[in-house]
Amino acid sequence: MSKNLTKRGEDYSKWYNELVVKAELAENSGVRGCMVIKPYGYAIWEKMQTELDRMFKETGHVNAYFPLFVPRSFFEAEEKNAEGFAKECAVVTHYRLKADPNEKGKLMVDPEAKLEEELVVRPTSEAIIWNTYKNWIQSYRDLPILINQWANVVRWEMRTRLFLRTAEFLWQEGHTAHATKAEAIEEAEKMMHVYAEFAENFMCVPVIKGFKTESERFAGADETYCIEALMQDGKALQAGTSHFLGQNFAKAFDVKFASKEGTLDYVWATSWGVSTRLMGALIMTHSDDNGLVLPPKLAPIQVVIIPIYKGEEQLEAVRQRVLPLMDELKKQGISVKFDDRDTQKPGFKFNEYELKGVPVRLAVGQRDLENNTFEVARRDTLTKETISGDVIVEHIEKLLVEIQENIYKKALDYRNTHITEVNSYEEFKDVLENKGGFISAHWDGTAETEAKIQEETKATIRCIPLDAKEEQGVCIFSGKPSTKRVLFAKAY
Amino acid sequence: MSKNLTKRGEDYSKWYNELVVKAELAENSGVRGCMVIKPYGYAIWEKMQTELDRMFKETGHVNAYFPLFVPRSFFEAEEKNAEGFAKECAVVTHYRLKADPNEKGKLMVDPEAKLEEELVVRPTSEAIIWNTYKNWIQSYRDLPILINQWANVVRWEMRTRLFLRTAEFLWQEGHTAHATKAEAIEEAEKMMHVYAEFAENFMCVPVIKGFKTESERFAGADETYCIEALMQDGKALQAGTSHFLGQNFAKAFDVKFASKEGTLDYVWATSWGVSTRLMGALIMTHSDDNGLVLPPKLAPIQVVIIPIYKGEEQLEAVRQRVLPLMDELKKQGISVKFDDRDTQKPGFKFNEYELKGVPVRLAVGQRDLENNTFEVARRDTLTKETISGDVIVEHIEKLLVEIQENIYKKALDYRNTHITEVNSYEEFKDVLENKGGFISAHWDGTAETEAKIQEETKATIRCIPLDAKEEQGVCIFSGKPSTKRVLFAKAY
Repeated sequence: MSKNLTKRGEDYSKWYNELVVKAELAENSGVRGCMVIKPYGYAIWEKMQTELDRMFKETGHVNAYFPLFVPRSFFEAEEKNAEGFAKECAVVTHYRLKADPNEKGKLMVDPEAKLEEELVVRPTSEAIIWNTYKNWIQSYRDLPILINQWANVVRWEMRTRLFLRTAEFLWQEGHTAHATKAEAIEEAEKMMHVYAEFAENFMCVPVIKGFKTESERFAGADETYCIEALMQDGKALQAGTSHFLGQNFAKAFDVKFASKEGTLDYVWATSWGVSTRLMGALIMTHSDDNGLVLPPKLAPIQVVIIPIYKGEEQLEAVRQRVLPLMDELKKQGISVKFDDRDTQKPGFKFNEYELKGVPVRLAVGQRDLENNTFEVARRDTLTKETISGDVIVEHIEKLLVEIQENIYKKALDYRNTHITEVNSYEEFKDVLENKGGFISAHWDGTAETEAKIQEETKATIRCIPLDAKEEQGVCIFSGKPSTKRVLFAKAY
Repeated sequence: MSKNLTKRGEDYSKWYNELVVKAELAENSGVRGCMVIKPYGYAIWEKMQTELDRMFKETGHVNAYFPLFVPRSFFEAEEKNAEGFAKECAVVTHYRLKADPNEKGKLMVDPEAKLEEELVVRPTSEAIIWNTYKNWIQSYRDLPILINQWANVVRWEMRTRLFLRTAEFLWQEGHTAHATKAEAIEEAEKMMHVYAEFAENFMCVPVIKGFKTESERFAGADETYCIEALMQDGKALQAGTSHFLGQNFAKAFDVKFASKEGTLDYVWATSWGVSTRLMGALIMTHSDDNGLVLPPKLAPIQVVIIPIYKGEEQLEAVRQRVLPLMDELKKQGISVKFDDRDTQKPGFKFNEYELKGVPVRLAVGQRDLENNTFEVARRDTLTKETISGDVIVEHIEKLLVEIQENIYKKALDYRNTHITEVNSYEEFKDVLENKGGFISAHWDGTAETEAKIQEETKATIRCIPLDAKEEQGVCIFSGKPSTKRVLFAKAY
C-alpha cells in the first residue's frame, strides 16, 4: 500500500489526523464531534484497559457501574462542578419520538413526553455517584469505598480532534470515599503514581508528575494532581488527572459518617481518570513519517510474518516453516500474525504494517528456507538483520524488550532536552516560539499573571512539579518574588 | 447477618427484588429506571463479559466502538426499526445548561443551545453502525465485517426491574456484514449457538433455541433467533437474540458492494446481543430461600474461608494454616477469600456468604488444626463434610466441577419437567395457571391467534423450537391445521 502520509515537519497536525485514519485507529462519525473507534484502535485501547484494570485491582479497587444520566438537580448540587460542566453538556429533555404529521417517514420529539426534570448525559460522575454513596455510608466501618467505573462520558466540545478532544469519549473514573483527609490525599497521590507507572512502563511515554494551579484544577476539586507528557511538536498533553475533592461533594450531597470517636463528620473524596485521549498521547509521542510506532506491550500484533513466494507451492513451503514458529511464539505469550493474503504483494504488506506500527516484521523467502534464516525488521529503528532459525524465538523475545526500552528512551531524551529553564519573559517567549517544550520558570503564584501569560503567549502552567525544589527567584512576568519554578508549555 | 429474605413460595417477585439488593448485586438509583450495578454484581458481569468476549474472538469477531448518539435522520432511515424504538427513546435536544435567572444556584436548559437535529441516545446501534459501514464497504473484499461492541443502551421502559428491565442497561451488540444471504444466516445461527453454549456451560442455565414469530421479531429483522430460559416460577425469560437483518439496513443506508462477479448488490446483515438481563436469568434460575446460588465458573469468590477462633493467638494459628492453602488454591486458578474480620461472628459470615452464593465455604477451628481437617460446606446442596488437609485442594477442585454440574442438572430437570404438551385450549389454560413453564402446542401460524391467546392468557409464543418436528395437528385456539408445535409461556 502507498502510505501518502503528510510528513511531521510539514504539518504536524495534518500528519496526526491522517495517521489516525490511515492506520485505521479511528474516524469521525456522522455525529458531530463523536468518533468511531475502529477495531485496530480499539484493540490498543483494550490492551490499555487490561493493564490499567489490573493495576487498579492490585491497589484495592473494584469496578461498578452508575447511571449514564444525571438529573439536573443532582448536577446542580456541587456548585463549582456544575458551573464547570454546564456549558458543555448534552441534555435529554424528552423520552419519546412520534411520527411527524407533516412529513411522512419523519419523526419528531413528542411534546407530551417531556421530562419533568432534564437529564444531563454524564460529563463526569461525581454527582450521580455521591448521591449514591450517601446511602452507602453511615459509619467509619463503611469506609473506605474504592470504586472504579469504565464508561463513556459526553462533553460538548466545539472543536474536536480524534482521541484528543471528542464530544463522547471512553474513560475510567475512580471515585473513592475516605474517613480522613490524609487518607484521601494519599489515595489521590497514589493514583497519580499508578498513572505515571502505566504511561512510562506500558506506553513508553515519560511524564512529569505535579499539581495543577488553582485555575487549571478540576471543577470541584481542592487539589488536582496530573501527569504531563510532551509530544514531538513540543506541545504538552495532560495524560491523566487525580483529584483530591476535599469534602466538597460530601457537603453537596450531605454524606456524613459516624467516626470511631463518635463524631459525625463529612466524608473525604477523590476522583481520578484517564481516557481514550491516551491514544492520542501514544500516537503523537512515538510515531514517525512512516506511520505508527507502537510499544510492544500495547501492540495488538507484536510480530507479523510475511511470506515472499511465487506460486502456491513456495507459499506452502513457507507455511510449513512458519506455523511451528508461530506456535512457539504464542507459547511465549507473543501475539503473531501470518499474512498470507495472495491479493497483496509483499511491498504493500511491508508498508501496511509499518503504517500500523507492528514492532517486529519477519520476512521469509526461498533463500531463507534454504539457509534456515529469517529477515527481521524493527519498526522503531527501521533496521533489518538476518537471524538464524535456531535462535529466532529468543531473538524476538529480546528484541521486543529492547524495542520497548528504546522507544521509551527516545521519548525520554526528547522530553529531557525540551525542558528549558528561563529567567526572563523575553527568554520565555523566545524558547516558546523557537524550541517549544516545557519551560521551567518562576511565577508569582497569582491567577492574574497566569492568565496574562496565557493571553499573550498561549502557554499555560502545565503543573507545579511534585519534585520542584525550593529556590529563590522572581516571577518572569511580574518580577515579584517566587520560591519555586513551575512548568509552562503550549498544550493540547 | 440476618437475611430476612422473603421466601420464593410466598412472593417470588418480592424475593427476587430483595435478593438483588441484599446480595449487593444492584440497586435502584436516583435516576428513574436506571440501576447502580454494585461491585459484587459487577464482578459477576465482568466474568460473563470475559467469557463471552473470548467466545466472540474465537469465532472471528473484533471489538470496536460507535457513538452513543444517533441523529434523528439516521434513526428514521430503517422504518420498522425506527417505529419499534421511537416510543421509548431518550432524546437529547440541547447541548448546554445555563444559570436560571429566576432561582439562584439552579440551572436551566439554554434555549440558545438547541440542536438543529435531535440526537437519540442509542436504544440499539444498527442505524449508527450501518451509516458507518456505508463508507467501509465497496467491494466483496471488504466483507465480511465481524464487529462486536460492548456498550450501554437506553430504552425508556415505564415499568422497570433491576437487571430484567431497566431504562439503561449494559450489553454487547454484534453487527456483521456479509456478501451473501446464506453467510449472514449462518452467522446469525452461529451466534445463537454461542449464546446457548455460554448460558449452559457458564451460567448453568439450560436454554431452548428457536425462532421468534413475526410479531415477536426484532424491529427491522427478517428472522430473530433466540435462546429461551425458564425461571423457577414457571415464567420464561428471553436470554439472548440473534437477528438475520436481510438487506433492510443496507437498503436504508444504501450500502452496496461490487461482487466477485461484478454486480452491485446490497449487503446482508446480522446483529446479536445479550445484556445485563442475563444477571436476572442467573439469579432466578438457581437461587433459593437462603440467597444466591452461583455457578463456580461465574462466582467472583469461589471459596471463602472462615476462621473459628477466640483471641488473636488462635486466629494467628488458623492464619498460618490457611495462607499456604490459599496459595495452592490460587495456583490452581481458584479465587479464594479469607474472611478474618474480627468485627463479625462466624455465624454472621456464614449467612453473608450463603446470601452471596459463594459455592464453597471452608471453616477452620481449633479442632481442625489439631486434626488437620477442614469443614467444607456446599452452597448448592447446603451440605457439610469434614475433609482432611492432605486432600483438600483436590477435593475443592473436584467439588467446584461437581457443583457446576449439579446446578445445571437441577435447572435442566426443572426445565424438562416444565415443558408440557397440550392439545386443547382448556388444557393450555389449565397448565398455564396451575403448573406454568413452557407449553408445547399447535398454532395456526397467524398473528391474530397469537394476539388473542396473549390477550386472554398473557402467554406469548416464546419460540418455534429449532428442533421442532413436523407433526400434523390442529391449532389449540382456532382449530385450523398446523404442522409444528411451538412453545408458549408467560414471560419476563
